Amino acid sequence: MADIAVLGHGVVGSGVLEVMLTHRESITRRAKEEIHVKHILDLREFPELSYAASFTKDFQVILQDPEVKIVVECMGGLEPAYTFVKQCLSNGKSVVTSNKELVAAKGAKLLALAQRNNLNFLFEASVGGGIPIIRPISQCLAANEVGEIAGILNGTTNFILTKMIREHMEFGEALALAQQLGYAERDPSADVEGADACRKICILASLAFGTHVYPEDVHTEGITRITLEDVAYADAWGGVIKLIGQVKMLESGKITIMVAPMFISRESQLANVDDVFNGILVRGDATGDVVFYGKGAGKLPTASAVVADVIDCVKHFKARKYLFWEDAKPGYVEPFGSVLDAFFVHIKGESSSDAVFAQAEEKFPGAARIIRKDEMPGEAGFSVSGITENDLQAALSELAASGISVLNRVKISDF
Amino acid sequence: MADIAVLGHGVVGSGVLEVMLTHRESITRRAKEEIHVKHILDLREFPELSYAASFTKDFQVILQDPEVKIVVECMGGLEPAYTFVKQCLSNGKSVVTSNKELVAAKGAKLLALAQRNNLNFLFEASVGGGIPIIRPISQCLAANEVGEIAGILNGTTNFILTKMIREHMEFGEALALAQQLGYAERDPSADVEGADACRKICILASLAFGTHVYPEDVHTEGITRITLEDVAYADAWGGVIKLIGQVKMLESGKITIMVAPMFISRESQLANVDDVFNGILVRGDATGDVVFYGKGAGKLPTASAVVADVIDCVKHFKARKYLFWEDAKPGYVEPFGSVLDAFFVHIKGESSSDAVFAQAEEKFPGAARIIRKDEMPGEAGFSVSGITENDLQAALSELAASGISVLNRVKISDF
Repeated sequence: MADIAVLGHGVVGSGVLEVMLTHRESITRRAKEEIHVKHILDLREFPELSYAASFTKDFQVILQDPEVKIVVECMGGLEPAYTFVKQCLSNGKSVVTSNKELVAAKGAKLLALAQRNNLNFLFEASVGGGIPIIRPISQCLAANEVGEIAGILNGTTNFILTKMIREHMEFGEALALAQQLGYAERDPSADVEGADACRKICILASLAFGTHVYPEDVHTEGITRITLEDVAYADAWGGVIKLIGQVKMLESGKITIMVAPMFISRESQLANVDDVFNGILVRGDATGDVVFYGKGAGKLPTASAVVADVIDCVKHFKARKYLFWEDAKPGYVEPFGSVLDAFFVHIKGESSSDAVFAQAEEKFPGAARIIRKDEMPGEAGFSVSGITENDLQAALSELAASGISVLNRVKISDF
Repeated sequence: MADIAVLGHGVVGSGVLEVMLTHRESITRRAKEEIHVKHILDLREFPELSYAASFTKDFQVILQDPEVKIVVECMGGLEPAYTFVKQCLSNGKSVVTSNKELVAAKGAKLLALAQRNNLNFLFEASVGGGIPIIRPISQCLAANEVGEIAGILNGTTNFILTKMIREHMEFGEALALAQQLGYAERDPSADVEGADACRKICILASLAFGTHVYPEDVHTEGITRITLEDVAYADAWGGVIKLIGQVKMLESGKITIMVAPMFISRESQLANVDDVFNGILVRGDATGDVVFYGKGAGKLPTASAVVADVIDCVKHFKARKYLFWEDAKPGYVEPFGSVLDAFFVHIKGESSSDAVFAQAEEKFPGAARIIRKDEMPGEAGFSVSGITENDLQAALSELAASGISVLNRVKISDF
């Protein structure tokens, strides 16, 4: 029998218990021994639960229990999760976590600590909930150079954008609906400002390219500025707007990485990833594009990924897993503004749309006009490519100086 | 250094060498030691190759070489592959294969032999080419009861159907194009008659539910009977026709499994898997629907999956992998004709379309008429659900007896 402990009995933690109890038999068969949740750390009490006796409020009970070889961290947030996980890994306990904030901020340190102590630190559930992605990237694609990863990594924003695209809801209305349905938190900023997607693309980038990328080094835009006009322009261009986390290896050995809303073509395999679903595209030199798709969050999908890691851990007590990456290195992330890119630009002037576009064309030779349904007088949209963010910014400032307001600009994807 | 041998230097075998050579450095880093292809078995000679000296025509050279711990089988076909693989597993050598025919026909026996000898028998490349699917199903979904798997498992037929749907090519014309582009063999029967997809759904079913399913126990229809009229009816119904391999666990503990062209709804996540791409949907109780998508065949995708298995094997020389299933058991596969299902039916009579449909409605109360663009006089299409294949068959015979020809019938999917 393998004794484990679970830190935190919130949505994911209680889901882990639920999965462990409802699938006890098949889990035992797969792990080749019974897995027993000996302790659950939570400051609250749950007297009504069948396993109420397993609760403790004292982390030391878990840390000092030599029978507990695996600790499952489902507390979320950076502290005290980080301290607890460090102490577990320093005391002979492998750790499984669903905490993306922890992995994005401390992954390299915790992986190094796990390696030094010949323990496992696994986090399949931290990206994509129940979609297997960490293991496929690290293992199945081992004989393949990954060049790029792009994904719809946040279900809440994808739900909001889907409502804007399909039902022409305004952003605020779609957000309110998401909150009402329980898809968005009361404070939705981590979702709609892109921080959640940013943590996930950091983890994927670290894993795929072997060097830790910290969230603060990633250009991150949310979807709060996206309007129904942008959605209509995307449609006229031949695609949809999605919030994308993207990382690409450059020939220089540096990476470009960002989270931003993007125009993506209707032909793209991510274009039909709608509602609360996530989709992750991994572009390899040998495999071509491989896409993983499913529910990226939710109690049971996430819990089942956690439990799968636990099973893996039990089966490989004495074998270190393959997961590892180096800590960050200076200059590894190419500054966002200096990479050639493509953009959609939405402007408005006092004269006719044609005249406004003509003015823009002087600053952006080769700009391709996009005309949306119900375009307003003086309004114009166009795409421009082969330009850096910095140069775009400079040209848009000049346009603004000549009396043309820049209403929005949205990156155009290359996948 | 780990010495390996490769059996067969055809498309996949030469791809394995190519991947091993071009990614030597990263493979060594991931496997934690260098992997060296010591022998290549092929009856042909390749004097122009840099590794020409490694070729042998004698399998005994490989079998008797105690330094070779892993043998990669890329010969295809059942014999001599099966004999060679058995001998390897009986002589202390782990085996990696891309040979779906071998795994579908002999998987349970070879897995049992590998287990007895504490060796690995790995076959990630046998389903889905470069799409990681064997490992995600067996490992990541360990804490999840899989209830159903449905997939577009054959790129050739998917290419042909895509051409029929998008460009209104006739089947024969689309097949000729596929042959011209190298997507279809000169003898395309294994693809277009469904045998290839059948082998793959057998492997997935065996893996997901733990009991071997043999191809001969699977109802298998190809796409040769699909016409442009069917495609138009599918469109009018709200979907597309795809060749689907599907397996479902029934409450009785039996499975229903088949390969057949199916109407699938435009909303289905498999509806947009087009051209030579494959897509596999795994429906779990905890994860919900997870979809894996990518190029299901091709030299480099398949070879990279083979090499990933080799790396995994090298890293776990002393650890048996998780793959295992029992041999087939009688009565485990529910007879195809006895399961309730939904169908599209295309008929033609001498009277008006309305009258023809009215006649059909008498046999099929609750039939829902589908009217396609450019419907011909006397032609009618409808869907019917909650009926078994056997009952459908009987009712259609009665219709035929009353002078109505049954032009086609196509299963309607439930995903």
